[in-house]
Amino acid sequence: SSNFFLMAGPCAIEGEDMALRIAERIIQITDKYNIPYIFKGSYRKANRSRIDSFSGIGDEKALKILRKVGETFNIPTVTDIHESHEASIAAEFVDVLQIPAFLCRQTNLLIAAAETGKVVNVKKGQFLSAESMRFAVDKVKESGNDQIILTDRGNTFGYQDLIVDFRSIPQMQSFNVPVVMDCTHSLQQPNQATGVTGGKPQLIETIAKAAIAVGADGIFIETHPEPAMAKSDGANMLQLDLLEGLIDKLVRIRSAIL
Amino acid sequence: SSNFFLMAGPCAIEGEDMALRIAERIIQITDKYNIPYIFKGSYRKANRSRIDSFSGIGDEKALKILRKVGETFNIPTVTDIHESHEASIAAEFVDVLQIPAFLCRQTNLLIAAAETGKVVNVKKGQFLSAESMRFAVDKVKESGNDQIILTDRGNTFGYQDLIVDFRSIPQMQSFNVPVVMDCTHSLQQPNQATGVTGGKPQLIETIAKAAIAVGADGIFIETHPEPAMAKSDGANMLQLDLLEGLIDKLVRIRSAIL
Amino acid sequence: SSNFFLMAGPCAIEGEDMALRIAERIIQITDKYNIPYIFKGSYRKANRSRIDSFSGIGDEKALKILRKVGETFNIPTVTDIHESHEASIAAEFVDVLQIPAFLCRQTNLLIAAAETGKVVNVKKGQFLSAESMRFAVDKVKESGNDQIILTDRGNTFGYQDLIVDFRSIPQMQSFNVPVVMDCTHSLQQPNQATGVTGGKPQLIETIAKAAIAVGADGIFIETHPEPAMAKSDGANMLQLDLLEGLIDKLVRIRSAIL
Amino acid sequence: SSNFFLMAGPCAIEGEDMALRIAERIIQITDKYNIPYIFKGSYRKANRSRIDSFSGIGDEKALKILRKVGETFNIPTVTDIHESHEASIAAEFVDVLQIPAFLCRQTNLLIAAAETGKVVNVKKGQFLSAESMRFAVDKVKESGNDQIILTDRGNTFGYQDLIVDFRSIPQMQSFNVPVVMDCTHSLQQPNQATGVTGGKPQLIETIAKAAIAVGADGIFIETHPEPAMAKSDGANMLQLDLLEGLIDKLVRIRSAIL
Repeated sequence: SSNFFLMAGPCAIEGEDMALRIAERIIQITDKYNIPYIFKGSYRKANRSRIDSFSGIGDEKALKILRKVGETFNIPTVTDIHESHEASIAAEFVDVLQIPAFLCRQTNLLIAAAETGKVVNVKKGQFLSAESMRFAVDKVKESGNDQIILTDRGNTFGYQDLIVDFRSIPQMQSFNVPVVMDCTHSLQQPNQATGVTGGKPQLIETIAKAAIAVGADGIFIETHPEPAMAKSDGANMLQLDLLEGLIDKLVRIRSAIL
Repeated sequence: SSNFFLMAGPCAIEGEDMALRIAERIIQITDKYNIPYIFKGSYRKANRSRIDSFSGIGDEKALKILRKVGETFNIPTVTDIHESHEASIAAEFVDVLQIPAFLCRQTNLLIAAAETGKVVNVKKGQFLSAESMRFAVDKVKESGNDQIILTDRGNTFGYQDLIVDFRSIPQMQSFNVPVVMDCTHSLQQPNQATGVTGGKPQLIETIAKAAIAVGADGIFIETHPEPAMAKSDGANMLQLDLLEGLIDKLVRIRSAIL
Repeated sequence: SSNFFLMAGPCAIEGEDMALRIAERIIQITDKYNIPYIFKGSYRKANRSRIDSFSGIGDEKALKILRKVGETFNIPTVTDIHESHEASIAAEFVDVLQIPAFLCRQTNLLIAAAETGKVVNVKKGQFLSAESMRFAVDKVKESGNDQIILTDRGNTFGYQDLIVDFRSIPQMQSFNVPVVMDCTHSLQQPNQATGVTGGKPQLIETIAKAAIAVGADGIFIETHPEPAMAKSDGANMLQLDLLEGLIDKLVRIRSAIL
Repeated sequence: SSNFFLMAGPCAIEGEDMALRIAERIIQITDKYNIPYIFKGSYRKANRSRIDSFSGIGDEKALKILRKVGETFNIPTVTDIHESHEASIAAEFVDVLQIPAFLCRQTNLLIAAAETGKVVNVKKGQFLSAESMRFAVDKVKESGNDQIILTDRGNTFGYQDLIVDFRSIPQMQSFNVPVVMDCTHSLQQPNQATGVTGGKPQLIETIAKAAIAVGADGIFIETHPEPAMAKSDGANMLQLDLLEGLIDKLVRIRSAIL
């Protein structure tokens, strides 16, 4: 396809029904627009600011739901891993292993992910330049795996804000890998006094449009039927009902640049 | 017109022939694409890093060339001013007075520009948030002038780099003024050891596409037939021959978002 | 003297009585500790965020008060200028001309200040590296004036914060000029939604101690008998009653590093 | 002791002889100045930029050397861990477990370290505010361990530089834990094109003096007899011969602030 692809789903897997319902709705949209779709859901949240934040419904339970979503709709799925021993476990359930941004320099984790043979999606650290992601790509490739995606989720800008540097997209594409814009986490407002990361979801469309215009290969969006009720990261998830309108705009921009 | 507008020209006015030649070529393009065009040229460079940098061919001579360009092609012109006494002088020769980014907080300068009755284009300081530009708008309006343009030219990001924050475009548009993306200066690499600001001109297209995709009202581009021969800011000027190709792409994106 | 020197006084000149009273109290302290003292007061505030912020009591009135303070106590005085025509006027009343940080790249302003023959104190722009201040030094020197002071007042760090980079002190001292730490403005919290810059005055001691420990030649502190009642920048001024305690600590650190 | 404490040693454990030799030399200094000393050495380097960077001499071998150093000189030792399963292993050999800055948000790792009962030294992420380290402290405490140290190693400042924010020291001390300044890693110049992090070792003294002046409880310094020959991080290590001169200066500043 000459279209961009979509990685989307809830922040965390909260239950099977919800996961299936979200996937079904997104597939209606991606089928309509002929967009390749990868279902995204975290089976565990390992780096919450606070110890009392929601961290998941149980690893095995969540992973089985991810597999169920994949099998039910015949779509690939992605989840994030945090320590190297998780790689082979998660690889039994999903198609893409995602390395969180804070962990993109952890060599053992990258190698463990690479050695599963699954696609490895490495998020660019908020503290790393696009140029430096070359070394993350090399670590995966030198472990014998050429299936790499790089995802941008913004850069540290003062203590309580992130800025997306759109120069990073062509820069990372120069490594001959697909580059995704994470339109959810790049809008985070970290280091809030409450220990709960804030956000500016009304700007998702701004980030997504700019990314597609400069040639991003994929878009990452966390979405939920009722973001305010979500168990993690509600501050930045897109309300599911708004997804089709956004995708429609992005597809038009994509057509304009091809 | 439902199209974006273009502010373009050489960094500094180097001579009449060159100014007329650049304007003529740009008008061929903007006429073809039905884009409103404002000719840009600095009559004096007041904030070079080094005292031995080129600072102009003489104020009156340069201002007369700006007027000549405007009259010859019946187009509006813009130049930047640096101290309040320059406002009324420059206003006799051009249609838009531009306030440089470093000076966007100088109240007297904003008031002097406002009181000429000309359009005032205020560049957002590299150290200012988009939200804070509200106060620059207020200073001009409270001086009795409602013709205001705001221009983004990037944000300080470490000592030697700038990042464009595309969230600033909708934020500044919320003040009900047109917002322009300066695709030239936002790619500067300041604080270079030589005292000559560097650049990454190959990324002009990236910045411009993203800006148009998120709805910028105008694009600012410095262009020169031979950037390497220009007397100032050669590092970031777009080669004039490349302008039409860029405009063509931007017009297509603009159509996709309307 | 082998001690550091002090530039201190109110943010803006609010009246003669207050200026004399503040100077008298500070001189008691600097005499006790054998610290060279320069009285500081702005005769005009030219770059407030908002047009309705306090901008001064009248230029001539304020300048005369500065002269009165200097003559009464036989101490040097400093004030800041904003456009080149102010240089020769202010030079009739004060001993040191200060170039505000936003304006440190304005060549004409630096030259005008240099040509008065007065000491020129250039504040490092929040967007400039210490290395780049070399060019400000050169502009003054090449105008025939070797009496230069450089002052650090922090670096842009996100939209709403500044960070002091203490590496800048030895870096700027390598240009063979005295380097001052501005302990007041480096604690500003810019870009607040109200248009009134915030601050963290409880950290003045932290910034001042670190500066003296790394060898700063001087300390700049805005102080007021009642900061909460001050007409500008109250958020960061040190309460005058606290100055002696601070100076005592700094003098002890200074002794430890000699 | 009313003195500050020192965490120092080579970046990575390269061999037993070298480790013992470095420890012996440092103890001569810390004994002379009555400074509590913790020997530092990494048993594995897990987050090198490049896969071909030196990552260690073997985990068990290096851990045994750490134990040997501790037993030989009767001093505490510290090493860093990267995944939760390493906590209980490392705890058999050292007294303090260190959490690398990139990993300071990994809840499982913090809990695993806390549950060993050893002292836990958490480095502040380059992307985290001092205020947010409150949540790291809480994660350790809520796991039943009150022995916590926080270490500052600078903040992301553009892609290729770090800045130390000395306000962070009193801020983190407000959590009632000792706060250490890492004078080595805070001088890193990340994201270099070579994939090898650069540095500015001549500024170690600047960072250390400022830290002691503002009241830091401890100083972290990597040191090596011949930094240029070190197998990792040579760019920022202090030459061992220079340590005593530095400590002497810091002790004098410490005395001045008590």
